[in-house]
Amino acid sequence: MKIAIVSGSDEGPTKLNAFDNALSDAGIGDVNLIKVSSMLAGNVEINELPKLKAGAMVNCVLSEITSDVSGDEITAVIAVAIGEELGCVVETTGKNKDADDLIEEAKMMVEYMMEKRGVEIKELIVEYSTATVSKIASVVASVVYLNDDIIEG
Amino acid sequence: MKIAIVSGSDEGPTKLNAFDNALSDAGIGDVNLIKVSSMLAGNVEINELPKLKAGAMVNCVLSEITSDVSGDEITAVIAVAIGEELGCVVETTGKNKDADDLIEEAKMMVEYMMEKRGVEIKELIVEYSTATVSKIASVVASVVYLNDDIIEG
Amino acid sequence: MKIAIVSGSDEGPTKLNAFDNALSDAGIGDVNLIKVSSMLAGNVEINELPKLKAGAMVNCVLSEITSDVSGDEITAVIAVAIGEELGCVVETTGKNKDADDLIEEAKMMVEYMMEKRGVEIKELIVEYSTATVSKIASVVASVVYLNDDIIEG
Repeated sequence: MKIAIVSGSDEGPTKLNAFDNALSDAGIGDVNLIKVSSMLAGNVEINELPKLKAGAMVNCVLSEITSDVSGDEITAVIAVAIGEELGCVVETTGKNKDADDLIEEAKMMVEYMMEKRGVEIKELIVEYSTATVSKIASVVASVVYLNDDIIEG
Repeated sequence: MKIAIVSGSDEGPTKLNAFDNALSDAGIGDVNLIKVSSMLAGNVEINELPKLKAGAMVNCVLSEITSDVSGDEITAVIAVAIGEELGCVVETTGKNKDADDLIEEAKMMVEYMMEKRGVEIKELIVEYSTATVSKIASVVASVVYLNDDIIEG
Repeated sequence: MKIAIVSGSDEGPTKLNAFDNALSDAGIGDVNLIKVSSMLAGNVEINELPKLKAGAMVNCVLSEITSDVSGDEITAVIAVAIGEELGCVVETTGKNKDADDLIEEAKMMVEYMMEKRGVEIKELIVEYSTATVSKIASVVASVVYLNDDIIEG
């Protein structure tokens, strides 16, 4: 199993468009995202996000928050724990919450998931995006599951 | 990539059943719908909805709204922009909002998405369903992604 | 088409972890769940849940409810109607509602769906999970769609 871990943020004229722009900023704006819950195979390999085919069906774990309240601080966090037998992903978001606190929470939740399964964490990666809303903004962080069908070329 | 664009509406004895009846009215009541976000490959081909296999796993963009308030006007809209390199879909819904306004909003959002990607719109299609609730009603509009696995016969 | 019908419940230190623990209790904690709407092929075969591959992409109908209010009674119900030509699944949940009432509602909704389609019910199965919340608890009931790709070994 191969994954890429990405994040992005942007403003837009509507909530939908801000969200779409944030996805494009993360490099996953031109595909169909299918949200899955949050488990990884063992020894998952982390790659740079390749160029994806337009309209491809792409499985992902998606953390996203959008706000149209000027001044709001919005944060989307993904925590990824990798183990020999399996891995776990946690996504969390916050509005006007300290990004460091959200990251800490996400780490604790994913550590608990791995401990509960008796799997040692070989690597713990956190990806996040945070922004202060000007007019309408969106932030996203995502684990993208890669396979040959969805990669361009 | 081939798609079908459908819509439907119906009443039912519960919200769940009204929604299910509206899906059946749209011709997609007997399959498993997997909601995806809203991108199309380039030069997508629009087909009539074929007969789908019962229980097939069908990717779709789904716009739906259900209400149990007698007299509510409910509307579900899908706007589909087709381009050479890729296409975009927007879904929006409204309760007691003018259907024409909702359609206009959906068109503006999808036009913005295409412009942002620098892709010229070759065709822009709007599909919508609107109803005044008698007891419990649901309206749906959907872009259904077609492939040979899900088509009967 | 082969399915398994499972349920589970557990407490946890956060809502996310309680939900994850309930999924593990149901035997589907180590896979990626993709939620689908609720149709079955004809003459679906019901199996025991096999050992699933860690991180596999698993289609399912999922009924789940999580609460952090001590004393809350939470219930997740799945009703599965099997027929010759197709089958239907209904999921419903309740907080501080009588489990028997919820089961009755789910049965009525799935019976209506089958009747509306003119398909005779050969078998009607209900699976549910109910719990009284101590600190933070989650209950789940699920129809899991099985295929060789997701089964271990």
